[in-house]
Amino acid sequence: MKCIKCGTPAFTKLLTSNTPLCRKHYIEYIEKKVRYAIKKHKMFSYDDKIAVAYSGGKDSTVLLHVLYKIEQHYPKSELFAIIVDEGISGYRDQALRIALKNVKQLGIPYKIVSFKDLFTYTLDEIVLEVKQTPKKLTACTYCGVFRRRAIDIGAKSLGATKVATGHNLDDEVQTFLLNLVRGDIKRIGRLSPAYSGMDVFIPRVKPLRYVSEREIVLYALAKNLEFHSDPCPYSSSSTRNEVREFINKTEIRIPSVRENLLAAFDIISPLLRKNSSDVTIKRCKKCGAPTSSDLCQVCKLLETIPKMRNFNIVKKMTSSK
Amino acid sequence: MKCIKCGTPAFTKLLTSNTPLCRKHYIEYIEKKVRYAIKKHKMFSYDDKIAVAYSGGKDSTVLLHVLYKIEQHYPKSELFAIIVDEGISGYRDQALRIALKNVKQLGIPYKIVSFKDLFTYTLDEIVLEVKQTPKKLTACTYCGVFRRRAIDIGAKSLGATKVATGHNLDDEVQTFLLNLVRGDIKRIGRLSPAYSGMDVFIPRVKPLRYVSEREIVLYALAKNLEFHSDPCPYSSSSTRNEVREFINKTEIRIPSVRENLLAAFDIISPLLRKNSSDVTIKRCKKCGAPTSSDLCQVCKLLETIPKMRNFNIVKKMTSSK
Repeated sequence: MKCIKCGTPAFTKLLTSNTPLCRKHYIEYIEKKVRYAIKKHKMFSYDDKIAVAYSGGKDSTVLLHVLYKIEQHYPKSELFAIIVDEGISGYRDQALRIALKNVKQLGIPYKIVSFKDLFTYTLDEIVLEVKQTPKKLTACTYCGVFRRRAIDIGAKSLGATKVATGHNLDDEVQTFLLNLVRGDIKRIGRLSPAYSGMDVFIPRVKPLRYVSEREIVLYALAKNLEFHSDPCPYSSSSTRNEVREFINKTEIRIPSVRENLLAAFDIISPLLRKNSSDVTIKRCKKCGAPTSSDLCQVCKLLETIPKMRNFNIVKKMTSSK
Repeated sequence: MKCIKCGTPAFTKLLTSNTPLCRKHYIEYIEKKVRYAIKKHKMFSYDDKIAVAYSGGKDSTVLLHVLYKIEQHYPKSELFAIIVDEGISGYRDQALRIALKNVKQLGIPYKIVSFKDLFTYTLDEIVLEVKQTPKKLTACTYCGVFRRRAIDIGAKSLGATKVATGHNLDDEVQTFLLNLVRGDIKRIGRLSPAYSGMDVFIPRVKPLRYVSEREIVLYALAKNLEFHSDPCPYSSSSTRNEVREFINKTEIRIPSVRENLLAAFDIISPLLRKNSSDVTIKRCKKCGAPTSSDLCQVCKLLETIPKMRNFNIVKKMTSSK
């Protein structure tokens, strides 16, 4: 199998078009996709201070490396990494080591934001605490919402004007299907590729939204990138897993299933946004974060943790500035 | 477990609300859902001549019985059954026997329309013929499109003003997801609960769209209805099966998954319809049927069957009037 561009031995074959590409042209192909996403959705302006939400996993490692390369062409822009330490013993420490190796290799400034510093307790401690409450929300519920805020606070403290996250094509279409099966139509209207939205102060962008999970792993392989790939000890079976399995199964008959779903989402989401009457973004009564209801997700969740009920996140937000 | 309405022993428990109901109240509940669908989507007018597309299977058997009951209250309306004989040996003959038993039991006028009469060949003969062609379309492709036309011609010949089909909640949401994974956004905009649309002359309605497959089987059981339940010999694994499996799996975590998807479809479909620029319905150049392109689906498919290329469906359409 020879690369369609240069005739050298192929490194891989693209799933949707069956095109064979060598390593060099595969890397080019992926980086072109990222530049396409940035341009199409006007994700950045030439002088943005971009904070990459960096975990050390495959998605954000690829994002960091690709943005680093692209950013070279914009002398007035800045790039740095926000690394969140949720406090998951035996898991995050290892990921942190790899994350630090990558930022140092590229010479990218970074900041580590930890749950312990920000919320007084590690995720492990929060999980232990809520085990005894009647609601018993999962670790992922707390982690997702608190990490989002941690990234926001960290990015703000460094003066970031954009936060770039590693959400890939699979994440995007899984979330779309998840919201459909949950009947959460409003959320489909609220999600967008360049999203300023709810619960965050700094606009978020997803430059990897056209790159599938498989393509990301292949890119990391092609560039010999080191990333953390152990599964999180808190991850458990979920509806998202069923959605993932369904898409992977469907791919056998319909190789472009992910692209089809994203195209559908990109038509449907703006129509829902336009049609929606509740676009007013309020301010959280407790912490002032943009939110769709009286309390933001963070402050709502804090109320479910007995020893954090009176915790004031505002102090942390201002003190870390 | 006691019926929540009358305290007699429960016949079943509703999936989405866990409500126990006795046989009588379960029957009432299902019939109420059908009346709700009819009213909400203005499916019928008081003097409609309703042709039920009747196969003898669970869905159309339940539809026939429920519509028969409802129709009693509308003296100016008429109800009859169109039974299609596709010519699938060892399968359809048995279904036909059960279908005739049901229409005769209710005293409902009926008409049998056969592929042999209408298209010169049975489905079995068509399948044999196309096996030797390079395209090798499946039996289901021909059967679906030709049966749709057969129902239309049969209904027209009896002067019907509406065709009612047995599509249930599962069918509706499966089709929605199928069109999403295929990226066929236009079709999502075209499908509607009371649909006059493409490729048919007589408006079609789906009174069972809020009733799930399971609820339909239970209703047939509750009323002791006889229906044909053998699987079609041509049915094979398909993307629709994967969609079905996914929904059934998701139901364990989200019992209202079907209702959620239908609600999403009912918001999204009209928005797409409103937004679409290609709403012009053309006429098929060969047979005059309403269509979105130059040729209708029937005439397009006829061209893929060597010995039917010059077949003229128009003659059949007018002669059976």
